[in-house]
Amino acid sequence: MKAISILGSTGSIGTQTLQIVSEFPNDFNVVALTAGKNLNLLLEQIRIYKPEIVAIADESLIPTLKNSIDNLSDFDSGSIPLIVGGTSGIELAASWDHSDLVVTGIVGCAGLLPTIAAIRAGKDLALANKETLIAAGPVVLPELKKSGSRLLPADSEHSAIFQCLQGTPWAENARLSTGIPTPGLKTIYLTASGGAFRDWPAEELHKATVKEATSHPNWNMGKKITVDSATLMNKGLEVIEAHYLFGLEYEDIEIIIHPQSIIHSMVGLEDSSVLAQLGWPDMKLPILYCMSWPQRFQTPWKKLNLTEIKDLSFSSPDKDKYPCMGLAYEAGKTGGTMPAVLNAANEVAVDLFLKEKIKFLDIPKLIELSCENHKNEVKHDPTLDDVILVDSWARKKTFDNQKIFAN
Amino acid sequence: MKAISILGSTGSIGTQTLQIVSEFPNDFNVVALTAGKNLNLLLEQIRIYKPEIVAIADESLIPTLKNSIDNLSDFDSGSIPLIVGGTSGIELAASWDHSDLVVTGIVGCAGLLPTIAAIRAGKDLALANKETLIAAGPVVLPELKKSGSRLLPADSEHSAIFQCLQGTPWAENARLSTGIPTPGLKTIYLTASGGAFRDWPAEELHKATVKEATSHPNWNMGKKITVDSATLMNKGLEVIEAHYLFGLEYEDIEIIIHPQSIIHSMVGLEDSSVLAQLGWPDMKLPILYCMSWPQRFQTPWKKLNLTEIKDLSFSSPDKDKYPCMGLAYEAGKTGGTMPAVLNAANEVAVDLFLKEKIKFLDIPKLIELSCENHKNEVKHDPTLDDVILVDSWARKKTFDNQKIFAN
Repeated sequence: MKAISILGSTGSIGTQTLQIVSEFPNDFNVVALTAGKNLNLLLEQIRIYKPEIVAIADESLIPTLKNSIDNLSDFDSGSIPLIVGGTSGIELAASWDHSDLVVTGIVGCAGLLPTIAAIRAGKDLALANKETLIAAGPVVLPELKKSGSRLLPADSEHSAIFQCLQGTPWAENARLSTGIPTPGLKTIYLTASGGAFRDWPAEELHKATVKEATSHPNWNMGKKITVDSATLMNKGLEVIEAHYLFGLEYEDIEIIIHPQSIIHSMVGLEDSSVLAQLGWPDMKLPILYCMSWPQRFQTPWKKLNLTEIKDLSFSSPDKDKYPCMGLAYEAGKTGGTMPAVLNAANEVAVDLFLKEKIKFLDIPKLIELSCENHKNEVKHDPTLDDVILVDSWARKKTFDNQKIFAN
Repeated sequence: MKAISILGSTGSIGTQTLQIVSEFPNDFNVVALTAGKNLNLLLEQIRIYKPEIVAIADESLIPTLKNSIDNLSDFDSGSIPLIVGGTSGIELAASWDHSDLVVTGIVGCAGLLPTIAAIRAGKDLALANKETLIAAGPVVLPELKKSGSRLLPADSEHSAIFQCLQGTPWAENARLSTGIPTPGLKTIYLTASGGAFRDWPAEELHKATVKEATSHPNWNMGKKITVDSATLMNKGLEVIEAHYLFGLEYEDIEIIIHPQSIIHSMVGLEDSSVLAQLGWPDMKLPILYCMSWPQRFQTPWKKLNLTEIKDLSFSSPDKDKYPCMGLAYEAGKTGGTMPAVLNAANEVAVDLFLKEKIKFLDIPKLIELSCENHKNEVKHDPTLDDVILVDSWARKKTFDNQKIFAN
């Protein structure tokens, strides 16, 4: 029985993790939940999964939550969890002693502090919060080395790489996120669907509307991530994560457009062999793999059928069409606090686009400007406070810069 | 330094193995060579690789070979190998004490006895002789269990599966060829190019000529194997090998037509994840992997480039077009000595086709008849002698049956 903590239990990763717990009641139990504001769903999760501790971001909601729990008719008083709140409460839940694996589903920089609390407590992490590595890679890596925590990637692409590497010396040494070059691994191929504008000519992109940018061909995701997929920034950010997770130089991490999203990513090994992981586009498999690793569990999930899919195709991404990709490689190579700026600027720029304040092609321009503004301020050995400061600086700066491009 | 023995050193597998030894002079040395009749090439190999023992099938050639070695001007007399001959000589070389890995490149049933000698001596094997498992599976499996020898597959498809399984409990337990179900492995997908007649309608196959049947789209191989590829018998035989190597039931081993031959095979794991191994069509990689396993060695070999290949396609094989496939599954399911009959009948039938004694579509008919003739004689727990007797019976029977179909 593995004890699971879920940071962000009412979000997409959180609810899918709980579905998996329900599918494997003899293998997993839930000991800690944290959530933002969705009290109704959180209450339902408490009733079903009976965690030992529950943390809610907004402390003022604690009395309401406690009351609701007391009013649950079918709830044994012995199952009532410890209810805590605010940053310190969430950190307490994240580092809860009885937990074996912490699933980090909190979105954005809000996820950073509890993730680091979990690492410091020596917990293994199923990592879905991308800021952990993109913004705070230089802070997190030494913490991992110190505590012996392992980062198991819960997203589809890095999970694919993680699965392909299981039989290599990398896995034998459990070299998870040590930032040290992976022995035997030569190339990482991150596959990208190409997003909503895959089949658009680059010259047409200036006309792209919010509605068009938020229709993803393969994955059903939130609007922000769907726009990231249309700009290919999602893949650029994954390149930076892959760099930190698997210790490869940027020139050895390649993006390949693969419209069917069936090959989730590949590794090129030093003897020229290539291993790939394939599956339907579904987040549950990578989440389950983090939870069952190093085992695999038997599922009744739909079997992949390549003869039904018929064709898998591949092409190189067009650098002119996807300028965000180049910005991500550049920010990654600069390192230090630059990827934090890239990530924050992207979030603000996409939000402005979704609010129709800027055009689709202004997204990369706005990000580039913020990175440019940060160029002479990069800290190469930042503290966590530096990262958080840079993140909020970049958000404000990008927001202010919008007037240059505003519609 | 790993000491290598090569059974069949002057054949295709043998010469490729020696090329690899030359590429990695600090990792491999050659201790034993066996060959048939190609004295000139064997002499050259002795000069370069300086084995400790050399066995030649035809004993009468021993004096000539000894003389030629004595006449080598640049040869140090301390490097002169022990020269032996005949069946017992080849078995002596196959079980040579100083050897760490025996590469079995001898074609046909002639490879069986030395392969079993190597297994009895506890040697690990890089298996390229398909009779070892197809004809003698029921004999070889208990021998492996007794001696602790491991069968490492040196052919492209089984190597792909072997590589994909490295991170599974199968590899951890080194369950190589124990015939016990592989934990966590649910499906094996063997990919097939579809051979020379992939794009022919089934109705046209009665017209197929020898020239057409021996032109393979992707791999450059011998004529016999190219015809096996056109009938899909090569894949049928690989299904039987996969059954013995990985312990899967026949209904869990699927053949997929994949014209590009880039995915060399795939495994479906119990959580629904699929792992694939990809590479250019080149036998050197699977041979090297047997030799370097469980390590991988750095090679300067051409990197796979999927964006250059652009498309990978997949379809289900047409059972009517490829009747040999069904015959192989049937023989495999019957088990015992039946696969030995299938294999022997196929060799004779293909040879008759190549000599234009029968038509292309007579190949499956002739094989089916031999299997039918053996139906009531199947031994389910055969000895090695039983297998060898059945093999020669099937060859004679198939040859005799040709008159029914003769042109």
